[in-house]
Amino acid sequence: MNVNDLNKAFESRVRLGIMSALVVNERMDFNSLKELLGITDGNLASHIAALEKEEYLLVEKKFIGKKTNTTYQITKKGNKAFKEHIQQLEKLLKKLK
Amino acid sequence: MNVNDLNKAFESRVRLGIMSALVVNERMDFNSLKELLGITDGNLASHIAALEKEEYLLVEKKFIGKKTNTTYQITKKGNKAFKEHIQQLEKLLKKLK
Repeated sequence: MNVNDLNKAFESRVRLGIMSALVVNERMDFNSLKELLGITDGNLASHIAALEKEEYLLVEKKFIGKKTNTTYQITKKGNKAFKEHIQQLEKLLKKLK
Repeated sequence: MNVNDLNKAFESRVRLGIMSALVVNERMDFNSLKELLGITDGNLASHIAALEKEEYLLVEKKFIGKKTNTTYQITKKGNKAFKEHIQQLEKLLKKLK
């Protein structure tokens, strides 16, 4: 077992949640993600920033009238990294059976 | 999905590794854990302390001649908490298929 096979960027429950949500729904906005995960604005914003910094998320800002609407998508790099993380988690879980 | 169903105590890869190792091997000493997980003394010590604080680990110190030998076991509480965490992880992974 090498715990370093698990991606440090996905250690946080919130980041696991964000990535999972964006695998299931191709594109989501800030409020939908916030409601889905049941977390605060600040908490979500900081984890989104961390995932964006890793280039795992694509952020798109649009104007709807005078309001901004920000949506998020997983990048190709993020998708690959998350899949690998899931596979490592599955391996770990299998060993525990 | 509620990311709060995942136990914050097990967010760290190292803690997942420690708990997994102690599920598979009933009792392990510091050096064996360190070698298995491929991490430094300080890193392992701090995560063990965190798990001990949660009462998830039982620490036993023995003298072998003049040397101390410290071994670790999972507590009943730790076992229950870890099993629940694994179940929540499995639920999350299932949703992603």
